Amino acid sequence: MKAYIIANGTFPKKKFLINELKNAPFVIVCDGAIKHIDRLNIRVDVIIGDLDSIDKKLKEKYFKKIVYVPDQMSNDLSKAFYYGLNLGFDEFIILGATGKREDHTLGNISLLLLYTKSCKNIIMKSDYGEFEVVKTPCKISSVKGQQISIFCFDSRIKISSKNLKYPLKELSLPLLASATLNEALEDNFYIRTNKICELLIYKKYL
Amino acid sequence: MKAYIIANGTFPKKKFLINELKNAPFVIVCDGAIKHIDRLNIRVDVIIGDLDSIDKKLKEKYFKKIVYVPDQMSNDLSKAFYYGLNLGFDEFIILGATGKREDHTLGNISLLLLYTKSCKNIIMKSDYGEFEVVKTPCKISSVKGQQISIFCFDSRIKISSKNLKYPLKELSLPLLASATLNEALEDNFYIRTNKICELLIYKKYL
Repeated sequence: MKAYIIANGTFPKKKFLINELKNAPFVIVCDGAIKHIDRLNIRVDVIIGDLDSIDKKLKEKYFKKIVYVPDQMSNDLSKAFYYGLNLGFDEFIILGATGKREDHTLGNISLLLLYTKSCKNIIMKSDYGEFEVVKTPCKISSVKGQQISIFCFDSRIKISSKNLKYPLKELSLPLLASATLNEALEDNFYIRTNKICELLIYKKYL
Repeated sequence: MKAYIIANGTFPKKKFLINELKNAPFVIVCDGAIKHIDRLNIRVDVIIGDLDSIDKKLKEKYFKKIVYVPDQMSNDLSKAFYYGLNLGFDEFIILGATGKREDHTLGNISLLLLYTKSCKNIIMKSDYGEFEVVKTPCKISSVKGQQISIFCFDSRIKISSKNLKYPLKELSLPLLASATLNEALEDNFYIRTNKICELLIYKKYL
C-alpha cells in the first residue's frame, strides 16, 4: 500500500511528478506544504505537523484533515512517515524534501536510511532526480546513459559495480562525493559490497 | 588571502550575498555559472572547468579568463578550489554549490571536509544559510536565536554542547539528521567531542 508524503521544501514543477501526485492513492502533507497542494487542487488525506508554517485560511479550510503533532524532537517529515506507517502503508514516495535549507536537505535524505528499516520501499523524488535505498548485493534499474551517484555512510564498506561507466572495484567511499557522477551503461546496473549494507542511490532524471 | 568560488548550482538572490560578491577580492567561476556573474556585471578573474555548460557567446566574451580543465575524475568545484589554492589563496567562500541536483549538493557539502585540510578557512553560503568546518573543541560565533545544525560523518564521535537550546550530552550522531534544528542561546556556542575531529556546522540566516 503506497502513500505520498509532501514535505515543505521545494515543491516539484515537473509535469510527470505533478501527474503522479494527482493520481496518488493517499497523500500526507507536511504542514505548510498544503499551499502547493491546494493551489493545484490535489486531493489531500492528512495534513500533519506542528502547524507553525500553515496559512490561517488553509488551516480553516482543511481543519477536518489536520493532525496536530507538536513534538519538537521530530521533524515534520518523520511525523508524516510514522503516521503513514501506523495507518498500514508500507511504500512511500516523498516529494518536496530537498531544496531550500541545506540542513533540512541533508537531514531528510539521511532519514531514508532510518525509514527503510520499517517499510518495504521508499523513494524521494525531486525535479532533478530520485533517491532510493538499496540493500547489497543488488540489481538496480536504470536507463542507459542515466547519471548515477552512490552514497555510502560507512567508509569501511568496499563497493564494486557492473554496468557503470566508471566501474567501482572494491572501492571505499570516504566522502559523500566519492562515487557521484557515474553513468549507467545499460538499463540496469549491479552493486555488491564486502559486507551486506544499505546504500543510497541517486538517479538523475534524463 | 581570500577567493570566492561560484559553482553552477542555485545562484544566490539575497542582496547581502550579491553585494559581498561584488566586493570580492578574487572570483573563480565554475564553467556555466558565468551566466549569473555576467548578468550582474561582476568582475571575474578565472573561469574554470571542462566547459560543457558554458554558453558559446560567453565563451567568446571571456576567452582570456578561461582555464580549460577536462579532468573527468574531478568536479568543477574541486577544479576551482585547487586552482585557487595553487595561486596562493588560503580562505575560500563558495556560492552556488547547493540547490538543483541533490547528488551535487551532497557531494559538494562533503567536499568541504576534504578542502579544509589544505586551507585556513572555507565557508559555503546560500540564500538559506552557511556551512563551515570546525575543529573540536571550539567556540562558534552565532546570533542569539539562530537555528543551528551539526553534522558529523563519524558515528563513533560523541558530542557535547554549551549555549544550544537542545544541549548535546556525549551524543553520537548515527544519521546526518541527528543534530539538526538546534538553536543558539547566545552570540556564540561551544562544541567538544570525546576525540578531536572536524564537524560541519550549518547556521541558518536570520
